[in-house]
Amino acid sequence: MKILLDLSFLGTAYCGYQVQPNAPTVQQQLNFAAKSLFGYDCDIIGCSRTDSGVHANHFFATVSEKGKKALQTDIAVEKIPKALNFYLPNDISVNSAKIVDDEFHPRYDVKYKEYLYCIWNSQTRNPFLHDRCWHYTKHIDDIAFENMRVAAEKFKGTHDFSSYMAANSTVNSTVRTIYDATVERNGDAIYFRVSADGFLYNMVRILTGTLISVAEGKITYDDIDDITSACDRGRAGMTAPPQGLYLNKVVY
Amino acid sequence: MKILLDLSFLGTAYCGYQVQPNAPTVQQQLNFAAKSLFGYDCDIIGCSRTDSGVHANHFFATVSEKGKKALQTDIAVEKIPKALNFYLPNDISVNSAKIVDDEFHPRYDVKYKEYLYCIWNSQTRNPFLHDRCWHYTKHIDDIAFENMRVAAEKFKGTHDFSSYMAANSTVNSTVRTIYDATVERNGDAIYFRVSADGFLYNMVRILTGTLISVAEGKITYDDIDDITSACDRGRAGMTAPPQGLYLNKVVY
Repeated sequence: MKILLDLSFLGTAYCGYQVQPNAPTVQQQLNFAAKSLFGYDCDIIGCSRTDSGVHANHFFATVSEKGKKALQTDIAVEKIPKALNFYLPNDISVNSAKIVDDEFHPRYDVKYKEYLYCIWNSQTRNPFLHDRCWHYTKHIDDIAFENMRVAAEKFKGTHDFSSYMAANSTVNSTVRTIYDATVERNGDAIYFRVSADGFLYNMVRILTGTLISVAEGKITYDDIDDITSACDRGRAGMTAPPQGLYLNKVVY
Repeated sequence: MKILLDLSFLGTAYCGYQVQPNAPTVQQQLNFAAKSLFGYDCDIIGCSRTDSGVHANHFFATVSEKGKKALQTDIAVEKIPKALNFYLPNDISVNSAKIVDDEFHPRYDVKYKEYLYCIWNSQTRNPFLHDRCWHYTKHIDDIAFENMRVAAEKFKGTHDFSSYMAANSTVNSTVRTIYDATVERNGDAIYFRVSADGFLYNMVRILTGTLISVAEGKITYDDIDDITSACDRGRAGMTAPPQGLYLNKVVY
């Protein structure tokens, strides 16, 4: 059988999801836990690469024996989360596990994903949110917030999003469809939620930085369409820092 | 002038509020920050001692020059939070500062305080709440939760609370008045809120452990009055771990 894991992780201690030499990653921890549990090396394939310091409320990964499509185990699938958690550090948790088709691919089979970006908009820092949000100190008033909200609406649709992709990234196509993009506020916290069929490198963080440019009055929401169609990274806003970003939902 | 600070801190890294030899404490950090800002040693008096690993959403402390009732400074009081935060680590924040009467005492002048105790009731851990709640894995069903809720009601009133005080504590009087005690649930999180004119050593953690004894059916809510009037620490429940506890409100 092939197993699909639903995970959560606090990304602060990790250089992203994907294994790389000489850097702690979430995948490395999962490799260790799976080998400890099943007794052999496994292939653990994630639904996405995440950047250093980025978090996940829900992240999906498949587990199969190294070089094979499935794995052999006597452990019942419903016992696997607790058993893997025993070998994982406290900042990573397997929430659930289920059996999927051997051909299932956690990245290619994604219908859409939702990211959440959290901004703490207060003069004073929040000790409980350090490394868990972007502490943005300039006050975003009601008018600036409303401008952000309208600007987010303009991101929706099928576009070439290369203005919102890290410079020097390589990818076959820079066209993506954003299904929804909303900005909400709850006290000093501002939440930007965006769902799409896929995301370019640093896309959510650059979209967030662009919303902040709108809040600051450097651009208006009427500029968004021009910035998008320019296909020029230099036209969009800054790349917001990683610690505010959460992979929030993955739908297959 | 004498200054009253409203602070928040994540207590994970600290052996409580109060300075002690060879252990990191919140007060030690405040002493350092105040000396760095004002240029002389200060007396920083807190509203409460907190245990190792306990947090505060709101904690109050006065600042005066060492051995004096007030302090001399040219810094405007509204600039003090940001200035102190510059010298404080990210897990402590000064939210606001105000001038109080030189005779004001942050502990003796408290009218009432509210503590919040957070339980994460799920088989799987939450990576974002490690060190921020008690991970209690046995499922608390609706009936058990309702029993906890009724039991919490029974804590209210003026009683000798020595059944809920850490053994071998010394204090002049063990009589306190609990004004309110409620249990709420939001998904997998359970919140116990209790306000009183004062608290005995470990009292909120033992009250929480007693509510868990009710949830587990070891005792019923009808036993609470007997346990209270027994004035016997052995009759109450376990001491819940520190990481779920937050000083939440202090009213002067």
